[in-house]
Amino acid sequence: MARVSQEHLDARRRQILDGAARCFARSGFHGTSMQDVLKEVGLSAGAVYRYFTGKDDLIAAIAEGAFANIRSAFAKAARTTPPPTPDVLLSGVLGGLFEGAVHGLERRTVASLIVQVWSETLRDERLAALLEQGYTDMRIVWAEVVAAYRDAGILPPGVPDDHVARTMVATAQGFILQEALFGDVRPEVVEDGLRGLMSMQTREAG
Amino acid sequence: MARVSQEHLDARRRQILDGAARCFARSGFHGTSMQDVLKEVGLSAGAVYRYFTGKDDLIAAIAEGAFANIRSAFAKAARTTPPPTPDVLLSGVLGGLFEGAVHGLERRTVASLIVQVWSETLRDERLAALLEQGYTDMRIVWAEVVAAYRDAGILPPGVPDDHVARTMVATAQGFILQEALFGDVRPEVVEDGLRGLMSMQTREAG
Repeated sequence: MARVSQEHLDARRRQILDGAARCFARSGFHGTSMQDVLKEVGLSAGAVYRYFTGKDDLIAAIAEGAFANIRSAFAKAARTTPPPTPDVLLSGVLGGLFEGAVHGLERRTVASLIVQVWSETLRDERLAALLEQGYTDMRIVWAEVVAAYRDAGILPPGVPDDHVARTMVATAQGFILQEALFGDVRPEVVEDGLRGLMSMQTREAG
Repeated sequence: MARVSQEHLDARRRQILDGAARCFARSGFHGTSMQDVLKEVGLSAGAVYRYFTGKDDLIAAIAEGAFANIRSAFAKAARTTPPPTPDVLLSGVLGGLFEGAVHGLERRTVASLIVQVWSETLRDERLAALLEQGYTDMRIVWAEVVAAYRDAGILPPGVPDDHVARTMVATAQGFILQEALFGDVRPEVVEDGLRGLMSMQTREAG
């Protein structure tokens, strides 16, 4: 058997994931069979199962790709002094996620795929287990950004880091949902909206 | 035929929706048949179809119940002078939504049901059409709260109202997702987290 380069293996893996993502985007996870994926990518079952054991594995790999994309943006932000404030950071991260970074799909399609992953995670214990590490790693890197805010003196005392991190995560997640449902989540919506929220005074401070 | 009171009709309608919500929470929308719903509520097909034409109708009615719950909280906030700031408002709204307000289900189950509705809306055009008015009404009432912030001088100039409204919506939506995925979205997480975000200085202001 001919020796196959890592580059070739990676390209083949990517080809399968791109095709699976197109299938899932078109017909949903439930409406897509492994046969549909094989047909879409034009490969034999043997070639595909060498990389992925089944649909759950494909979904998890696609989700992990999106996770990795977001994680690297946050890790970079945490290393910047001072780190970009949430308005700049989140509009950049969402922009990067939507702009063709995920399997060449359109932005609203990417968002729909992510919402499907959320919903499926709630119903499929195996998928939930496959994604658990990804969710955990995500929370760690978000916490690092908030710690960087704390170090830079941007975040006032008296508020638990974890609560701020979860609020930033929530905002990003909600915008992904809005893009899926309505489209039109342009970077300036995220940036201006967060800037507005960040400029508001709480009752105690007002 | 005996005359039936409006009260009786409402109670029967509620009984059907409670049972359907339990079925959907247990088995998902796809895994629930109308037969399952009939069995759960212990009524005949004739009795149930008098109120609802099918599963989509039941899903839409359950979603509309959650919408109405959230809308009334925001309408009330918009009428208060000055309106509660986002940290107080959103923790109260989410608390009210989760605390047994929806068909007697547990908070994480309510959240999971809402995530299912989002996902299903993306795949089911009939359901999307049924829910469109609900989403539109929701956006109107959110905009009224932001206008109230503007009137009360809480919101600084230079940021479009709509972008702030969408950011608040996004935060609430993201916390619903987090409750569904991880649980533990306690009111103080929402309140402290938003307070932290609201206290941060943007780069230009810092």
